[in-house]
Amino acid sequence: MAPANQEEEVRLLGKWPSPFSNRIVLALKLKGVSYKYSEENLANKSDDLLKYNPVYKKVPVLVHNGNPIAESLVILEYIDETWTNNSFLSQDPYERALARFWSKTLDDKILPAIWNACWSDEKGREKAVEEALEALNILENEIKDKKFFGGETIGLVDITANFIGYWVEILQEIAGLELLTIEKFPKVFKWSQEFINHPVIKEGLPPRDELLAFFKASASKK
Amino acid sequence: MAPANQEEEVRLLGKWPSPFSNRIVLALKLKGVSYKYSEENLANKSDDLLKYNPVYKKVPVLVHNGNPIAESLVILEYIDETWTNNSFLSQDPYERALARFWSKTLDDKILPAIWNACWSDEKGREKAVEEALEALNILENEIKDKKFFGGETIGLVDITANFIGYWVEILQEIAGLELLTIEKFPKVFKWSQEFINHPVIKEGLPPRDELLAFFKASASKK
Repeated sequence: MAPANQEEEVRLLGKWPSPFSNRIVLALKLKGVSYKYSEENLANKSDDLLKYNPVYKKVPVLVHNGNPIAESLVILEYIDETWTNNSFLSQDPYERALARFWSKTLDDKILPAIWNACWSDEKGREKAVEEALEALNILENEIKDKKFFGGETIGLVDITANFIGYWVEILQEIAGLELLTIEKFPKVFKWSQEFINHPVIKEGLPPRDELLAFFKASASKK
Repeated sequence: MAPANQEEEVRLLGKWPSPFSNRIVLALKLKGVSYKYSEENLANKSDDLLKYNPVYKKVPVLVHNGNPIAESLVILEYIDETWTNNSFLSQDPYERALARFWSKTLDDKILPAIWNACWSDEKGREKAVEEALEALNILENEIKDKKFFGGETIGLVDITANFIGYWVEILQEIAGLELLTIEKFPKVFKWSQEFINHPVIKEGLPPRDELLAFFKASASKK
């Protein structure tokens, strides 16, 4: 557990099916930090969300003792620097740079490619699937034979890759696609199993049946 | 100057008119780090660029003792953690989070809006200019009455904002636009003057006439 401080107030504004919000849930659980959670309705944003994240008006937002922080990668580094137990980053500057590079690449390139493939219409599907497979291949080459991207323990890249570890399997089922399979990407697949079975991660992921129902409902509205 | 280490080899693969490459030049100069520079030809990428940045195949890439690092914001933090004189970031986790948030917001939102306005065709111009002015207004509200975004000294956000401080004035001249002016955004304008007149920054920026000629030539090919 993180050092207890009774004066501390940690609040998370999130949306439960969002992998970006979930990253912060996982990070706080890995650190053993207690927090209050507010579920946001993005169709009717709360005054707090608009006040705390005026630039993007998006979740997740972490509010620590009244100080708001937005953007999930920024929040993850803040959490790691504020509660220093169970570090998400190595002390070595080059290892830290690589972790930041991969987290950024997940957000800028890999996640969008997979998301687009899962929600593509028939016309764009072939190209979108090809790009998603290329994106997963980049990760397959990176994970090599490490247990986690962070080595023996969960680190920044593993938390950022929660979408790959948990959401992709659900979204590809809804889309009728085979993107992340044991045959195509054995190393990323093996990582995803390690990830979802990690005792703290397992407890911090939203229930599979509820996530499946949520995205099925989204797909039917398309 | 940074502590001398005769064994150290620092190499930068860049492109001189790129504000992203220039960030690394400025950072190395602020730290007093000597480096070898290789100008890349993006129409005919070098084997080194393809080897060192296989995911994006883009500049800038920093190679430190054989270890390559890509993505300018990742490189800036690496430089700050490797050569610890003249820190770009505060020691306070919340101040660090804010600096990371603003650097990311410059790259994800503010720079693209201004760039689009400067290169927009007549049809899209009105909307693009409106978005660029909104983006500059976000910065105007953030800089307040600080000398630099980093406070009294140049920090991560100032280096990341080099495009705002130097490139915008040149690009808006070519485009015939008035985006960043003393009347519209007095605080950002004042910051830009402090920035370009800082003795180390001044020395690290590419010559104005060459940059103007480069982008004029690009504009004439459109």
